[in-house]
Amino acid sequence: MSATTFVYIIEIIGTFAFAISGIRLASAKRFDWFGAYVVGLATAIGGGTIRDLLLNLTPFWMTNSMYIIVTGIALLVVILFGKYLIRLHNTLFIFDTIGLGLFVVVGIQKSLMTEYPFWVAIIMGVLTGAAGGVIRDIFINEEPLIFRKDIYALACVVGGIAYYFSDKFGANYVVSQIICATFVIATRIIAVKYHLSLPVLKGEEDYIESKKKK
Amino acid sequence: MSATTFVYIIEIIGTFAFAISGIRLASAKRFDWFGAYVVGLATAIGGGTIRDLLLNLTPFWMTNSMYIIVTGIALLVVILFGKYLIRLHNTLFIFDTIGLGLFVVVGIQKSLMTEYPFWVAIIMGVLTGAAGGVIRDIFINEEPLIFRKDIYALACVVGGIAYYFSDKFGANYVVSQIICATFVIATRIIAVKYHLSLPVLKGEEDYIESKKKK
Amino acid sequence: MSATTFVYIIEIIGTFAFAISGIRLASAKRFDWFGAYVVGLATAIGGGTIRDLLLNLTPFWMTNSMYIIVTGIALLVVILFGKYLIRLHNTLFIFDTIGLGLFVVVGIQKSLMTEYPFWVAIIMGVLTGAAGGVIRDIFINEEPLIFRKDIYALACVVGGIAYYFSDKFGANYVVSQIICATFVIATRIIAVKYHLSLPVLKGEEDYIESKKKK
Repeated sequence: MSATTFVYIIEIIGTFAFAISGIRLASAKRFDWFGAYVVGLATAIGGGTIRDLLLNLTPFWMTNSMYIIVTGIALLVVILFGKYLIRLHNTLFIFDTIGLGLFVVVGIQKSLMTEYPFWVAIIMGVLTGAAGGVIRDIFINEEPLIFRKDIYALACVVGGIAYYFSDKFGANYVVSQIICATFVIATRIIAVKYHLSLPVLKGEEDYIESKKKK
Repeated sequence: MSATTFVYIIEIIGTFAFAISGIRLASAKRFDWFGAYVVGLATAIGGGTIRDLLLNLTPFWMTNSMYIIVTGIALLVVILFGKYLIRLHNTLFIFDTIGLGLFVVVGIQKSLMTEYPFWVAIIMGVLTGAAGGVIRDIFINEEPLIFRKDIYALACVVGGIAYYFSDKFGANYVVSQIICATFVIATRIIAVKYHLSLPVLKGEEDYIESKKKK
Repeated sequence: MSATTFVYIIEIIGTFAFAISGIRLASAKRFDWFGAYVVGLATAIGGGTIRDLLLNLTPFWMTNSMYIIVTGIALLVVILFGKYLIRLHNTLFIFDTIGLGLFVVVGIQKSLMTEYPFWVAIIMGVLTGAAGGVIRDIFINEEPLIFRKDIYALACVVGGIAYYFSDKFGANYVVSQIICATFVIATRIIAVKYHLSLPVLKGEEDYIESKKKK
């Protein structure tokens, strides 16, 4: 199996896992099949689409119908086997995390092929991995989860910085990509296993109300 | 009256109907005049703007001030005659549905002038017709209506598929466009008349809470 | 001090003030540090990013890391001195308003360098000044403040129209820019000082519910 085939299979797995996460949250909100499909698709392709718009590239999913089809299969799976998915929680978590690692690598790689500096590439990696989940949460009218809990987006940042140093120390780009994905996946797994999270900002809870009334 | 003039008049009617829908929902949320105008405008031009950004075309409303002006007239109408609009419910529904049919046709047509395959054009048709309503609902902080009820976006999909087969069977593009719009409008009217809707996904209602606490 | 340096300093102040506003609202929602940073960044650069996507220009913050860094400093300030910020309310309001004036000028200026007509430039000015706050409110899952209260976006419109007439009467573009910023700032300060606001649309409060159930 070639490296390209390997990456493509991981990309399908990542797309599937991201779509499943969107569809399940949509089902918790009692969306209909179409709504769930759209939320699943937005979760899977939303981050990469924003990245491509910012980099002025053709949105990646518009030249390959795989993403549309895999999301459709994810919807079918939730419709048919929804009640068993809860038992597959750990499997889905692993799929989702592997997908996250790959999405970050793809985002950084695409940016490095343009003229932008490395810090832009890291931001694009984070967007590719994490922005789909933000769009998903806006669609289901919830505060974005990644803004409140979990080392999720931060895992993407860690992976991006690892890529940068690996690249700076002269590593081959394939090595840098593997290091990047490994850091993303390891950071995420360690954070979940040990319940690590970022500090919460001390709230001025009445600030929003005061703004509304002022 | 030429065909171009005819299409232009329908486009104005569609823009007006979409803007009215946004402004009325904004008024239900007690937005001020400016907020209502923005919500109306986003409803009318949001879908087409996303389509043009994805296709890397100039956003359509930036070369013709008609959309800005028609939305202003829609705001005036709601300010002056708001309380009578409820009686015009059926008229507004017809306007909205005709506009939907045309928006889908315009979205598909613009995409077919690029190099993208037909399935991308169908997605662009759906986005042109339905994405404005999603933006509207995000602005008024409600779960997007089209994700939960009605055959609305699905009517756009049906119209797009009708366009595809008409095109495949060698029909002239004007014929294909009329068939597409007819299918959108008919699907929507039949769905509303007979209270047809898509199945709702069986909910894991506690999934969101579990995600928040985990 | 050259005019360019002066504008750059004001841009830093504006970015800082916008970021602070986003971070404080995120803290009221108990977002973690990362979430607060993202909301602050989106508030500061969101409007300009939408403008640049619509104008098909390179997003301004991707060629200068200043915006990323200033938002980081803003986060640090809120973490360390958050509880004192409430006393600085008036200072922050002035910073925010000066930033607003400059953002509108930058938005109009960038648009006039393209081929678009003046009314598009005014819309881009309003987007540059006001769209970041809308994205901020969507992220924290609140109805956008500028749709419900305050002469905020309207101050941008007033400044844009002032720019237009100044330009039409043959004023030098530096003069037009100063007039524009002055009108934005003055309109905003007068509106807040005298509690001016736009009329609220008479609500059909049951319209949303009827749409949901229909």
